[in-house]
Amino acid sequence: MKDACKLTATDAGAAIRNGELTPRVLANACLERIGRREAETGAWEVLDGSRIDEQLAKLEQVPGPERGLLHGIPVGIKDVYDTADLPTAYGSAIYEGHRPAWDAAAVARLRAAGAVILGKTVTTEFAYWKAGKTRNPHDHSRTPGGSSSGSAAAVADFMVPLATGTQTVASTMRPAAFCGIVGFKPTLGRISTAGIKTLAGSLDTVGMFARCVPDVALIGGVMAGRADWVAARAAAMPPVVAFARTPEWDQVSAAGIAVVEDAARMLEAAGATLSTGSAPAAFATLADDQNQVLAFEAARDFSSEWRHHRALVSPQLSELIEEGLLLSPADYETAQAHRLECMAALDGLFGGADILLAPSALGEAPPLAEGTGDPLMSRAWTLLGLPSISLPAGTGPAGLPLGLQLAARPGRDASLLAAAQWIEERLA
Amino acid sequence: MKDACKLTATDAGAAIRNGELTPRVLANACLERIGRREAETGAWEVLDGSRIDEQLAKLEQVPGPERGLLHGIPVGIKDVYDTADLPTAYGSAIYEGHRPAWDAAAVARLRAAGAVILGKTVTTEFAYWKAGKTRNPHDHSRTPGGSSSGSAAAVADFMVPLATGTQTVASTMRPAAFCGIVGFKPTLGRISTAGIKTLAGSLDTVGMFARCVPDVALIGGVMAGRADWVAARAAAMPPVVAFARTPEWDQVSAAGIAVVEDAARMLEAAGATLSTGSAPAAFATLADDQNQVLAFEAARDFSSEWRHHRALVSPQLSELIEEGLLLSPADYETAQAHRLECMAALDGLFGGADILLAPSALGEAPPLAEGTGDPLMSRAWTLLGLPSISLPAGTGPAGLPLGLQLAARPGRDASLLAAAQWIEERLA
Repeated sequence: MKDACKLTATDAGAAIRNGELTPRVLANACLERIGRREAETGAWEVLDGSRIDEQLAKLEQVPGPERGLLHGIPVGIKDVYDTADLPTAYGSAIYEGHRPAWDAAAVARLRAAGAVILGKTVTTEFAYWKAGKTRNPHDHSRTPGGSSSGSAAAVADFMVPLATGTQTVASTMRPAAFCGIVGFKPTLGRISTAGIKTLAGSLDTVGMFARCVPDVALIGGVMAGRADWVAARAAAMPPVVAFARTPEWDQVSAAGIAVVEDAARMLEAAGATLSTGSAPAAFATLADDQNQVLAFEAARDFSSEWRHHRALVSPQLSELIEEGLLLSPADYETAQAHRLECMAALDGLFGGADILLAPSALGEAPPLAEGTGDPLMSRAWTLLGLPSISLPAGTGPAGLPLGLQLAARPGRDASLLAAAQWIEERLA
Repeated sequence: MKDACKLTATDAGAAIRNGELTPRVLANACLERIGRREAETGAWEVLDGSRIDEQLAKLEQVPGPERGLLHGIPVGIKDVYDTADLPTAYGSAIYEGHRPAWDAAAVARLRAAGAVILGKTVTTEFAYWKAGKTRNPHDHSRTPGGSSSGSAAAVADFMVPLATGTQTVASTMRPAAFCGIVGFKPTLGRISTAGIKTLAGSLDTVGMFARCVPDVALIGGVMAGRADWVAARAAAMPPVVAFARTPEWDQVSAAGIAVVEDAARMLEAAGATLSTGSAPAAFATLADDQNQVLAFEAARDFSSEWRHHRALVSPQLSELIEEGLLLSPADYETAQAHRLECMAALDGLFGGADILLAPSALGEAPPLAEGTGDPLMSRAWTLLGLPSISLPAGTGPAGLPLGLQLAARPGRDASLLAAAQWIEERLA
């Protein structure tokens, strides 16, 4: 099979089940692609051929009826997820060569479903701002976005059909948009973060990347133990979609706004009900609240690194920690209380809509020198714990991908996946 | 100074500040006490004299004005907290000899405040049911309670003035009550759990033990970075206290009920306003909800251990994981949604009261063969994230300690500490 590395996970899984493809051929196709592209893209932190061979040999012993939902599908794991068989450095010099004693819970679930853990993908330092070596596969002078840089670039560059990420601010939505692929961040708390290095405990969320919506439904469903996510198919009924120009929209590029407006018009023409409105005033400060929660929690969650290895903490993370250490507990608790109030008032945000639309990022991927891009467009929704998906939607003035961000109410992950697939089919 | 090991942390700190005591003399007094009692009590998993010496030598270099709030105070650390300089096995054969790459964030904050980490205390397996070697210092045929068994026993046995615990179900309240000491579980989320092994991510809470309320305020305030907790002193005004006989009370022993009723009468006589009533009907299922959340989350958070080391998981934890794997995501989400509804309806539970009263446990510490005791009396309050304190309050028919459990609204930790100190002074 030619170009097996370009298959979606769903198609590759079907080809494996019907005997047209084997896990070994697929893994080799991915490794060959990596061999050709990695020098420029720089998506991988660790690749260990002998570990891949071990996994393939084990999978070959699994009889057909016992094969899991991801049997033989290669997956890249962001290097903030612990892996018992591969080093895990969290993008930090502090933990160079560190070998965890366990797999992150989400990794163990991927293995149990038959996934082939191909290797560890580059993360920014502790999933915050300091970029790693990864470049945007669409333009090597641009950032892939952060913090799940390597995972997004690897999927976009056809090195692997699936990869895991995290989102504490915008670390799944933004790289998905910049790399022109699908990103999915489920409802806060739906997938275990055990064995994932903490950045800000009450915000950290498991995310994932693929090249189509059914694929994020598949890997997300496996990690969450949700058959209804795996089974999510394009909604039979057009969704009710809405967008409200929040204060953040003022900072979005014209192309970024146009993506949402074009998509809205197109979806309306395809039968979707569209409403526009304004977000309730109480929601206007959520992006600031998110930053306060982030800084306060990072300052405490990195207490060990701050005490024992301060010289090895980047200027970017040091600035966040110092900001957090200056916040009063009362500031933090006010932000958390406001978060809860808004979570209890989502009717005002959604109105009658199922799905909110917004730009995934301010515009196209910026040049590498400017960092990993602004996370503004996901701050509020991450704080609220909303499930969200970024779909590739057109290109900007430089010809680089833009993203359309969708969000649903907490717990409505399966219907978000169904609506996203309906939208994906019409955007295509 | 004779019997320095019997000093409270507050008194020992004052003695160190005014030159009557040195950290080394205090640490040696604790070690000597441990030497005399450990064979019977079995509170410690790891004690490393050379690490203690290193810490003392460093503290001796700290000039007076730079000394922290816990300068020279020995602390025992429950063995589910990671420590970079001591092995951490989480009470499980799986991780025998495991050496973490970091300190838990709470441990780093204790070190930064000048605490002397004396060693690691015995935990039940992963802070769940399977007991370790620890015995109740008041009666070596009885359980100290779990899961923070060694921490509670060490403090009760005058081996150390302070120790850390966790609470996912009742793992701070119950051992505090059984061992006749003070236990404090702050509001959910107020202290970082980074570097503490996850049992059930949305329930795990940092807890702590001491022999008086000002001491738990001190260590809690250090770990939380809360000056107002450290400064909490007996409330000037008597608290408004309430108790409502929930369905759980039917299972409490007569002596356990009498503790609350006697305390309520005594507090009323001392000027407290007392109300009795009934908890709202919606709250009746919270203990069951708590168990569903626990089982579902444990089943996913232990995915790695379940996949790679199932033969080394105890029957007790295996049963919980199997229960969790059988729960549907809908059951879990229903329980979590009900939790949120009740958290938004605390007015109905508290009425006009500041402080709720309840038994800390069903009765006295059961015999070792019966396990670590029933956690029922803390399930609902842990689920709601309420800050709670267990105070020693009388003895039961076997002459063993009983506990009075106090709870306040989320975020009211400082006023809970102040009320608890007011109550402690009157119970004494």
